[in-house]
Amino acid sequence: MIKKIPRIGKLRSGELDLITDIAGITVGHCTLDQGAIQTGVTVIKPHCLDPYLHKVPAAATVINGFGKSVGLMQLDELGVFETPIALTNTFSVSSVAQAQIKQAITLNPEIGRAWPTINPLVFECNDGYLNDIQAMSITAEHYNTAYSQADRYMQQGSVGAGRGMSCFNLKGGIGSASRLVTLNHQQHYCVGALVLANFGILSMLTLAGQALGQQLAPCLQQMMSATEKGSIIMILATDAPLDYRQLKRLSLRAGIGLSRTGSFWGHGSGDIALAFSTAYTLPHDPEQPMPATAFIHETLLDPFFQAAAESVEQAIIHALYHAQAVQGRDNHQRYSLSELYPEWLI
Amino acid sequence: MIKKIPRIGKLRSGELDLITDIAGITVGHCTLDQGAIQTGVTVIKPHCLDPYLHKVPAAATVINGFGKSVGLMQLDELGVFETPIALTNTFSVSSVAQAQIKQAITLNPEIGRAWPTINPLVFECNDGYLNDIQAMSITAEHYNTAYSQADRYMQQGSVGAGRGMSCFNLKGGIGSASRLVTLNHQQHYCVGALVLANFGILSMLTLAGQALGQQLAPCLQQMMSATEKGSIIMILATDAPLDYRQLKRLSLRAGIGLSRTGSFWGHGSGDIALAFSTAYTLPHDPEQPMPATAFIHETLLDPFFQAAAESVEQAIIHALYHAQAVQGRDNHQRYSLSELYPEWLI
Amino acid sequence: MIKKIPRIGKLRSGELDLITDIAGITVGHCTLDQGAIQTGVTVIKPHCLDPYLHKVPAAATVINGFGKSVGLMQLDELGVFETPIALTNTFSVSSVAQAQIKQAITLNPEIGRAWPTINPLVFECNDGYLNDIQAMSITAEHYNTAYSQADRYMQQGSVGAGRGMSCFNLKGGIGSASRLVTLNHQQHYCVGALVLANFGILSMLTLAGQALGQQLAPCLQQMMSATEKGSIIMILATDAPLDYRQLKRLSLRAGIGLSRTGSFWGHGSGDIALAFSTAYTLPHDPEQPMPATAFIHETLLDPFFQAAAESVEQAIIHALYHAQAVQGRDNHQRYSLSELYPEWLI
Amino acid sequence: MIKKIPRIGKLRSGELDLITDIAGITVGHCTLDQGAIQTGVTVIKPHCLDPYLHKVPAAATVINGFGKSVGLMQLDELGVFETPIALTNTFSVSSVAQAQIKQAITLNPEIGRAWPTINPLVFECNDGYLNDIQAMSITAEHYNTAYSQADRYMQQGSVGAGRGMSCFNLKGGIGSASRLVTLNHQQHYCVGALVLANFGILSMLTLAGQALGQQLAPCLQQMMSATEKGSIIMILATDAPLDYRQLKRLSLRAGIGLSRTGSFWGHGSGDIALAFSTAYTLPHDPEQPMPATAFIHETLLDPFFQAAAESVEQAIIHALYHAQAVQGRDNHQRYSLSELYPEWLI
Repeated sequence: MIKKIPRIGKLRSGELDLITDIAGITVGHCTLDQGAIQTGVTVIKPHCLDPYLHKVPAAATVINGFGKSVGLMQLDELGVFETPIALTNTFSVSSVAQAQIKQAITLNPEIGRAWPTINPLVFECNDGYLNDIQAMSITAEHYNTAYSQADRYMQQGSVGAGRGMSCFNLKGGIGSASRLVTLNHQQHYCVGALVLANFGILSMLTLAGQALGQQLAPCLQQMMSATEKGSIIMILATDAPLDYRQLKRLSLRAGIGLSRTGSFWGHGSGDIALAFSTAYTLPHDPEQPMPATAFIHETLLDPFFQAAAESVEQAIIHALYHAQAVQGRDNHQRYSLSELYPEWLI
Repeated sequence: MIKKIPRIGKLRSGELDLITDIAGITVGHCTLDQGAIQTGVTVIKPHCLDPYLHKVPAAATVINGFGKSVGLMQLDELGVFETPIALTNTFSVSSVAQAQIKQAITLNPEIGRAWPTINPLVFECNDGYLNDIQAMSITAEHYNTAYSQADRYMQQGSVGAGRGMSCFNLKGGIGSASRLVTLNHQQHYCVGALVLANFGILSMLTLAGQALGQQLAPCLQQMMSATEKGSIIMILATDAPLDYRQLKRLSLRAGIGLSRTGSFWGHGSGDIALAFSTAYTLPHDPEQPMPATAFIHETLLDPFFQAAAESVEQAIIHALYHAQAVQGRDNHQRYSLSELYPEWLI
Repeated sequence: MIKKIPRIGKLRSGELDLITDIAGITVGHCTLDQGAIQTGVTVIKPHCLDPYLHKVPAAATVINGFGKSVGLMQLDELGVFETPIALTNTFSVSSVAQAQIKQAITLNPEIGRAWPTINPLVFECNDGYLNDIQAMSITAEHYNTAYSQADRYMQQGSVGAGRGMSCFNLKGGIGSASRLVTLNHQQHYCVGALVLANFGILSMLTLAGQALGQQLAPCLQQMMSATEKGSIIMILATDAPLDYRQLKRLSLRAGIGLSRTGSFWGHGSGDIALAFSTAYTLPHDPEQPMPATAFIHETLLDPFFQAAAESVEQAIIHALYHAQAVQGRDNHQRYSLSELYPEWLI
Repeated sequence: MIKKIPRIGKLRSGELDLITDIAGITVGHCTLDQGAIQTGVTVIKPHCLDPYLHKVPAAATVINGFGKSVGLMQLDELGVFETPIALTNTFSVSSVAQAQIKQAITLNPEIGRAWPTINPLVFECNDGYLNDIQAMSITAEHYNTAYSQADRYMQQGSVGAGRGMSCFNLKGGIGSASRLVTLNHQQHYCVGALVLANFGILSMLTLAGQALGQQLAPCLQQMMSATEKGSIIMILATDAPLDYRQLKRLSLRAGIGLSRTGSFWGHGSGDIALAFSTAYTLPHDPEQPMPATAFIHETLLDPFFQAAAESVEQAIIHALYHAQAVQGRDNHQRYSLSELYPEWLI
């Protein structure tokens, strides 16, 4: 059905144009589609090892902090995360966090005994327009299912945590993209983005610089009844050796891609970005050797910043194009961009 | 049994030398004391109204972010909290957060429907030395019990969230204190502190400037086997009209009181401070009038900073003196300072 | 010569479409145009009183901190500034800061004696491509001249601090714009922006969503020899009563307007935003009464954020359209967008 | 005259108990002692190479931002500094910053031409009680003299930038100390501190845990007429391989040492800490190889934090003990702790 998706920017994409173009990253979904229950869980595995033992270097930027994600305080202090990344709806954060804790204890029974506790990392958006969020339907089993489904060939659109999400008053959800960076004609890196897109009002929608929302909004007034209570989670990854501070700089650039789709980082939107590197890990055990990584020279970061901006904008567009229409609680429904305007897609 | 507790600083205390000296603040505990289960919940109610409808101005400082508290991201963005403050053990954060969500929905059924979601605010320390933290014993009912017990006459020591906590390898827990500030001989304010003290190793213990830990440590070597995996939560409150930025400045000064007890804000310690004001609230409903508050002139803040430093140091000492010895999982035990050294207390 | 300037966004502009649409704000320039010396000073007066005695509520966001502006540390702590805002070239920051100190001492001789010192507030960009920046030509007299020229009817383009600035490898400089916000059909406010635009490479230039830089860049390859060493200063003002935290949120939205012109907040660019309110001032003297201001309800901020994004993007476009070509040191020159492509402007 | 200085903490000191115990670090002073002119410049050279070409990894914490230091914004973004560290009085920051710029251009004439500009790094305290700060006596020559005097055998007390500084209403100034850290019985590191101490009121003075200020204050009431308008600059250095994030954590711990001397980080005090590592440098030239450094494992940082706390507290005490009495403008004078109370020192 999807015919032609606007292409953002000038950098080349990776093979799949997905965050999973970065070696080792896999993504899994668990989708709940049962009447008023339209929600789910998405899990990003940064590598195939136990992330508690092999911690992942990362940093986050809170562009607008109207949100309930957990795990960022410790991430900001220590510059690592130690669980898979999970995404879900706002009222299921606790359930998924608890599932992460239990999974970690199963793998490492001394967590909370001789070893320190574990820092859950769960991001969320409010899917309450389509989903009966008060039902708190997500359980540990859903997290485990999403985890076990993780694969390089990931789905986009109304799946996993994206099942009930809205974006520009249309159907939103999961989108992903990637961009390639070459330094000095010889070093090749990839930057990938995965978004959980649940923000925006239709009149602001901008596709590849075109202010389409202004044209569409008058025809679709009934869509716009719901005020903005959205959010977007933007996960960036790279195989380039960047340290915490550089990853923090990278994560900020997610805001560029977001703003170019028409968002002005609204008051009620939790706009959160996280960037991580797969180029190295940090050992949990202090007796293991620390990696001796030569990081990218600071003056060579511009193409990474550009790649972050492009891949986030592209990932949002992918979420919109791949999302299928969903009808949820109280007959609320969101239309799919690609079904409404098939002619754009030719 | 407690005879003489060192008095910190030069400012006078409020009537009870407790955070509840500030009008409207109440504190409740729910304590679990069942063999290996030595844990609990403590709730601070900032005022007697619904905090979702009458949001509480607040700001936080993360002195050392090795911690899993939830709710600070949104608090930092919006400068308010909207639930009672809850404290518990690390692996029960989710359970208590979920209890807060449910309590709020019960009071305001449109939360997550027509209204935005709610931001749980739960602080934690790791009580895994005494408590079987993996048992995840805390339920919504325990939160509700602590909430319903909230009273001006609060208990200190091995109660509520403090039940299983350790401090300087001794028994820690809940402590509180207050200090009075007078401006221009006529305006009278109070600053109060409540701490959940679970940090430190014995050799560092400093009481009112005396390095007692160095003397005690040799005699009590077996206590020191556990490495520092602690934390401290420091809640400051005042009835002075301070805005977000001023409350942020105030919250930072909690670190002074903490450092003077011997802490160097260790790597593995989640040292988190929050400060709130009871002088005004912010309406949830934008159609309600906003308060027109004349804040304290910036150059008059010094006595508040001093009061914050003194009350936090005093509250930690109160936690140590009031805490009763506890034996928990695997026969782990923590001695009580006041039982070990009754002669100090005369 | 300028015929048609793209109009950004949907909000109405103020009368002049300038930051000076906000009552009380005036702007003055001092321009040096002498061969290799192509530089200057721009001064923004936030109100007509002495800002040391009547401090201006403000907050800043450092979007990318490759810059040498001074004064932001204290502004971030205290939430006010206390001098006029000055803009100049990178190597003249000290000279202008010293001029501000002397001006303040002249007005208040006890500064640095019985009174505290004063916090200079000087922003800068590097105009070294056109200007002999090593000559350090700016003196206190130039600051004083710009100050004395401050007027509601301000000039844009290659004037004042903008004289030697480059933007997208074209001539940059000073631009300004304003947007109107109406709350509840009855409360009317204005948001204004003034930028010192000195960033970007031609291939990235995006005008009102159109990626013109990609078309132009091949024809103008010689322009692109200089790598990005730019910056942009973005000053936002409003007559709405916003507090420090709200102004901080507002200042961040400057990054939206910037990113939509094609910037990805490059590594070497000092991208700094400051937002201030003219709705109230804070007295230096603690014996003066503090203002009792009812601030805007947080949920009503979205139109202000939109206005900030729109006015910054518009101000950058104004800088490009108003800037006249300049030839400077070593025969370096920058073309004017409006002279190169007059047909766009019809 | 100085006989017995209280010793802080439990860690061993380096050979000289100075920041210069760290190989490569040298410190120089230029002191102005001419009637009402009682001021100066102090320079810390982090290594013997050109710091613009071999940038120094560093991070800073603003404990209380009432200050006018310059250079921290870029340092926070890039994690390096690129000039020697300079300290002086508040109104001479510009003069010293300009001297740093000129020095750098002399060494690298393409700065501000083909190369980026340079980021001056100048810290300050207000010595206006003793010094005629409005005279702005410091010139580039004074900076150059301090720079050229830099030596491992540095002076403390009323020298360099410390000449006119007051501390606890006594004479303050420059102090330094060092502490040794051993990891795993085999890796030996040093942490050093240098402070410019200009803060506090006498009644708060605490020496090694003893609240001496409370005893002294009644006898010395005339000293206390001046209200707190002070500041302290705390420079930490280590030869351990720490990255930016770890150095940021280290710099925060300076606040511990400061608070233990009696400071509550007063409103009007610019309390700024910077930490840098000499274990590696970052090349200016992107064609140079980046260092491949194995950083210290995060869980091993505690002794460094303790060393930072101890060395800052010790350095403040050194400043007080080494400072000689100074009489300055308008017959203002500050007594020397060691001359007033020689009996303490036996």
